[in-house]
Amino acid sequence: MGGDFGVESSIPGLALVHQDNPQVRFKIYGDEALIYPLLNKHKSLLNVCEVIHTTKIVRSDEKPSSALRSSKDSSMRMAIEAVKDGEAQAVVSSGNTGALMALAKVILRPLPGIHRPAIASVFPTLTGKTVMLDLGANVLVDAENLVQFAVLGAVFARSHMQKERPSVGLLNVGSEDMKGPDHVRGAAETLAQVEFPGQYYGFVEGNDITKGTVDVVVTDGYAGNIALKTAEGVGKLMGDLLKQAFKSNPLSMVGGLLAYSALKQAKRKMDPRLYNGGVFLGLGGLCVKSHGGSDAIGFASAVRLSVQLARHGYINRVGEEINNLMAQETFLT
Amino acid sequence: MGGDFGVESSIPGLALVHQDNPQVRFKIYGDEALIYPLLNKHKSLLNVCEVIHTTKIVRSDEKPSSALRSSKDSSMRMAIEAVKDGEAQAVVSSGNTGALMALAKVILRPLPGIHRPAIASVFPTLTGKTVMLDLGANVLVDAENLVQFAVLGAVFARSHMQKERPSVGLLNVGSEDMKGPDHVRGAAETLAQVEFPGQYYGFVEGNDITKGTVDVVVTDGYAGNIALKTAEGVGKLMGDLLKQAFKSNPLSMVGGLLAYSALKQAKRKMDPRLYNGGVFLGLGGLCVKSHGGSDAIGFASAVRLSVQLARHGYINRVGEEINNLMAQETFLT
Repeated sequence: MGGDFGVESSIPGLALVHQDNPQVRFKIYGDEALIYPLLNKHKSLLNVCEVIHTTKIVRSDEKPSSALRSSKDSSMRMAIEAVKDGEAQAVVSSGNTGALMALAKVILRPLPGIHRPAIASVFPTLTGKTVMLDLGANVLVDAENLVQFAVLGAVFARSHMQKERPSVGLLNVGSEDMKGPDHVRGAAETLAQVEFPGQYYGFVEGNDITKGTVDVVVTDGYAGNIALKTAEGVGKLMGDLLKQAFKSNPLSMVGGLLAYSALKQAKRKMDPRLYNGGVFLGLGGLCVKSHGGSDAIGFASAVRLSVQLARHGYINRVGEEINNLMAQETFLT
Repeated sequence: MGGDFGVESSIPGLALVHQDNPQVRFKIYGDEALIYPLLNKHKSLLNVCEVIHTTKIVRSDEKPSSALRSSKDSSMRMAIEAVKDGEAQAVVSSGNTGALMALAKVILRPLPGIHRPAIASVFPTLTGKTVMLDLGANVLVDAENLVQFAVLGAVFARSHMQKERPSVGLLNVGSEDMKGPDHVRGAAETLAQVEFPGQYYGFVEGNDITKGTVDVVVTDGYAGNIALKTAEGVGKLMGDLLKQAFKSNPLSMVGGLLAYSALKQAKRKMDPRLYNGGVFLGLGGLCVKSHGGSDAIGFASAVRLSVQLARHGYINRVGEEINNLMAQETFLT
């Protein structure tokens, strides 16, 4: 029900996912008066969808604390509870991010040993993809949180990019050992010593994110969120300047038309809709936040991400790896 | 003498500055055997340049601590000392950033009341320009440092953008009051109360940098450096994808040629060379770092920035404003 377009983007999105994942089944939580008209437009979905009717929603401007108190029977809460009860393997929502994180934390609970869950997303690079976390769940973290994020991210990269030993870098302001804040240097020390499902690369800088220097970029939610939003801003600025340029005179308009299909392909490589989906990692169940402004294509990407992680058994795998880490940490201290 | 191209970029750069600033005089510190052949190629410079010969340099891989100990008679140190002694109004260097900052701090000293100097640069936005600081001088700052950065940045914007009351935003992970780390929220509280040479806007996010939401973006060197490098990376990724697109087939190549001049104009708007120059703010003299990889056009931009700030009397103006701030802070506490 959430996001700018509600079921208008989510249900056509499910229809797209169904095309290449015919065996995946969906539980749709929300107002059936809004849902059925759309399902009837996408008849292929009728056999793989179950509608659980509720008119209660978590509003987009609701504070997490209020959502925790009074979200009973809301579509968001019921969907998360379905994951907790084992009726679903993942939940995807376009709704209120703060409320979704608060409810997911309380209902799905952090995995044993995890102090703070993190938000991860996939980004396009010159050569492929990078996973980055945390993108804003935790402004303040310590070295141990970052080490745990490295494990959460490495298992994510295994599932998503089929890399057995993904390389993991810590985002910092320089590559020398003595650079950066305490929590980043502390995490570097531990990651250089422990066995974990990735290969520790060292420090990376902001430009390494899109260069594809590592498979997983680990950072705190403060720097991660600022990097993410800055990247969005630069992308928009360059896109806008480019559009202006093609419109600026008749010759460049013709040029733009001739290069249209090649430009479209380039744009597709960076299309944020294809990288949509912020995955809450470190909880006992899979929860994916779809961008509130995304359309059907964007929503479908978030759902595909959840399907992929669920298929790969992310929760069990990451639980084991966190246990392994904890065993070594006891040994280290 | 510094940077990837040494005098090969700096002296042709001075020739460019001389074209539109015929009254500005230059002191060139370095090896005259390298300098004179280039001056003879740019004869217009001979009347406005003085060469102070030294073969000693601060190496690009030298640690700041080593530069502090053994930089006597080096081109970098002598140039900074010329500012201290009032023989020059600003120093511009393409050399070792850490050494330049360390020497500038020791020789030019922080202004009375300033706890930490900051590095500021100008960035292109959709509608004009934004000044951002700190870009990496201080990883760890407190609320008071950020408040001082706001003053340093606001006076910079006055000088550079001729805005009498530039708007100032604090970079954060959201716009709500309760968001973000302590030092950012603390600075917000003070900035909302004090009189300073800017207009406090509130929190801004990463995408606001290029949107041009405010004239001055204030942040710590950790987030600032990561935002800066991330922006560089996204710019490069998009530029590379675009180049690939135009080369991908004969039709798009023709399209690229037809749109060439419009595209070049768009590129010019974001050309990092035109925004080159990291200004060390908060010291008793002007010191500008030119990017080590920049060519003559880039070096000229850094020199023009220093000329502009010197002409506007930045050091005296900012000294007064810091005094005003301190007077109010005593009152506040």
